[in-house]
Amino acid sequence: MRDVYILGGGMIPFGKFFQTTSAEDMGKRAALEAIRSAGVPRGELQACYCGCALAKLNVGQRILGAIGLSAIPTFNHENACGSGAAAFRDAWVGIGAGLYDLALVVGVEHMTKEIFGLIQAADGDFLFMDMGLPTPAIFSFIAHRHMEQFGTTPEQIAKVSVKNHRHGVHNPYAQYRKECSVQDVLGSRMVADPLTLLQCCPIGDGAAALVLGSEEAVKRHSAKAVRVLASVFEGGRYKNAAADGTTIEVTARASRKAYEAAGVGPEDLDVLEVHDCFSIHELTIYEDVGLCPKGEGGRLLDEGATSIGGRVPVNPSGGLLCKGHPIGATGVAQILEIFWQLRGEAGKRQVEKARVGMAHNAGGVLTISPEPAVCGITILAS
Amino acid sequence: MRDVYILGGGMIPFGKFFQTTSAEDMGKRAALEAIRSAGVPRGELQACYCGCALAKLNVGQRILGAIGLSAIPTFNHENACGSGAAAFRDAWVGIGAGLYDLALVVGVEHMTKEIFGLIQAADGDFLFMDMGLPTPAIFSFIAHRHMEQFGTTPEQIAKVSVKNHRHGVHNPYAQYRKECSVQDVLGSRMVADPLTLLQCCPIGDGAAALVLGSEEAVKRHSAKAVRVLASVFEGGRYKNAAADGTTIEVTARASRKAYEAAGVGPEDLDVLEVHDCFSIHELTIYEDVGLCPKGEGGRLLDEGATSIGGRVPVNPSGGLLCKGHPIGATGVAQILEIFWQLRGEAGKRQVEKARVGMAHNAGGVLTISPEPAVCGITILAS
Repeated sequence: MRDVYILGGGMIPFGKFFQTTSAEDMGKRAALEAIRSAGVPRGELQACYCGCALAKLNVGQRILGAIGLSAIPTFNHENACGSGAAAFRDAWVGIGAGLYDLALVVGVEHMTKEIFGLIQAADGDFLFMDMGLPTPAIFSFIAHRHMEQFGTTPEQIAKVSVKNHRHGVHNPYAQYRKECSVQDVLGSRMVADPLTLLQCCPIGDGAAALVLGSEEAVKRHSAKAVRVLASVFEGGRYKNAAADGTTIEVTARASRKAYEAAGVGPEDLDVLEVHDCFSIHELTIYEDVGLCPKGEGGRLLDEGATSIGGRVPVNPSGGLLCKGHPIGATGVAQILEIFWQLRGEAGKRQVEKARVGMAHNAGGVLTISPEPAVCGITILAS
Repeated sequence: MRDVYILGGGMIPFGKFFQTTSAEDMGKRAALEAIRSAGVPRGELQACYCGCALAKLNVGQRILGAIGLSAIPTFNHENACGSGAAAFRDAWVGIGAGLYDLALVVGVEHMTKEIFGLIQAADGDFLFMDMGLPTPAIFSFIAHRHMEQFGTTPEQIAKVSVKNHRHGVHNPYAQYRKECSVQDVLGSRMVADPLTLLQCCPIGDGAAALVLGSEEAVKRHSAKAVRVLASVFEGGRYKNAAADGTTIEVTARASRKAYEAAGVGPEDLDVLEVHDCFSIHELTIYEDVGLCPKGEGGRLLDEGATSIGGRVPVNPSGGLLCKGHPIGATGVAQILEIFWQLRGEAGKRQVEKARVGMAHNAGGVLTISPEPAVCGITILAS
């Protein structure tokens, strides 16, 4: 496998657009911006990889049609909330294997149109229908176990959302741009104890896109590219994803493999975007990817280490909790944020001297389902 | 890219199962048979690629869960009727690039449960909603142009279905196993002139699976493997897929690339499975993949060349028209039929001395849509 680079990226501000837009239109706008940013003639793109969970058929082809691109193959990826990372990984393989020199990756979701499909992400039949466990309930279990086992407090968990909203204020692409206090978070409507409304990522629409290429393509276009040090996509374990109830085993395994492939460790990371679909998840991700020992996620956050200005800022974009989580768009938007951070183009949310960054995207039910989940980890370096 | 082999395959008989089954159950049965047939311990499989167009989220993960496989990544592919070929191609890339040694490919569709999603395959907004053109109408246009331009007769077009039903009688996996005459076909209910009901592939449910591996994996398991000479997946041209109205340009281009990659030509093919979603499509595929000159598809069929026993049998399985067309399952089932034919395991529908075979799978609207379609071509050799 040869080296793969990101040459450019673009996205649209996430939000709730209902019938005022379409997946094609959102994808088109993100893709055109990514292509412009990469500085490559669109006719040189040789393949398209599209991550989308809920849209109707052929969404990638529709986006290509909307930007007047044709005669290149499209691969539409659906891996629930991990769809964006799956599309990115597949593009990385295609370029790494030498099949293509330049490829477009698009992540898109029109959730306000397709919301009823979403409960299926959480193993609709088994967990939701048979056991009455929608996704927030599953993360509620994890939160309670973490509190019981490690003394983590509801305030610490709530602070994830406080931090991410503080970051997101500076992100023009974020769905919400308003700070909130611990009291605001804890005082918002209870969804699944201890997770209140402001600790659950919102429903939203959006799209993000990246242009990936080989070293030759980077040289040909004199692009200011960011190198992909590792792209790992792993599957969860059957009925045993969380032996201790708070470890997402697939995240731990995927990050280990990514560190090995990239030749870096957690101590080398300058910035991360992680899958904070619920506040508690960000704390377990700290632990699972090795930012701190098991059980110390709450303390790491309390110390300010994961805030912008801290030792290892996490979710400078605002994360899923604040920037939003249009399913298929998320994994691509996370990588795009790291790309911007490493190029020093993140504006007021810029992490200083960011050289190495990680994006963590997950999909499916991460703990107790008989359906294996997925986790995609991408490590980039400037 | 290193060589890739098919070690085993399995499928379930296609049919209409309504609520008596599920995508997970069908996929499970096909996958278990493929694994058994390959003679590999299932624990050695390193990745799963699942083609499915209409199912709820995470269908590949659900199938893995159902067979007790876990901790391996799943990539769910949606490319409308070409979903199966997309999943196969991605698995071929993964093994060819050296990322995996053994992978499972599953194609599955529960159409009788998810049928309402299907009209979306034909660019629901533009063609179906705005222009009132469901898929049969598009192939009706192609048929009329072919008749006008080349003197092809409605009887010749109908004979595609007669031939494929004659073949399918001998296929225990076919949805229909009853011969029909030209009179039966022409006398069945008109759908989109000249295409009558028996010239349109049926709604159906089903699953098919393959085990792919590297040369090392073949040797390790002493498998009687079939080599993949070429796996090509191409995208159609924007607004120009059929400049002359009867050429599916993406099929012609994909087959040219496949011949080049495989080092064979159409004259070397002993057997083909092609995407006869409507009778006329099989005739244009003859021409587009080079079995005969443009316009002579009807004559090639009339001569019996494409019947079992003829020069180059096409759709010995019965094709989509007779075996059925459970969207995501089709592309995988076509490759499986060629695999069986090349191993001499096709029973009463066996093509004698079959050494080289092609599977042709298509998805999306192949002619007049602004949405580029896809075409997957696979060439195998014993």
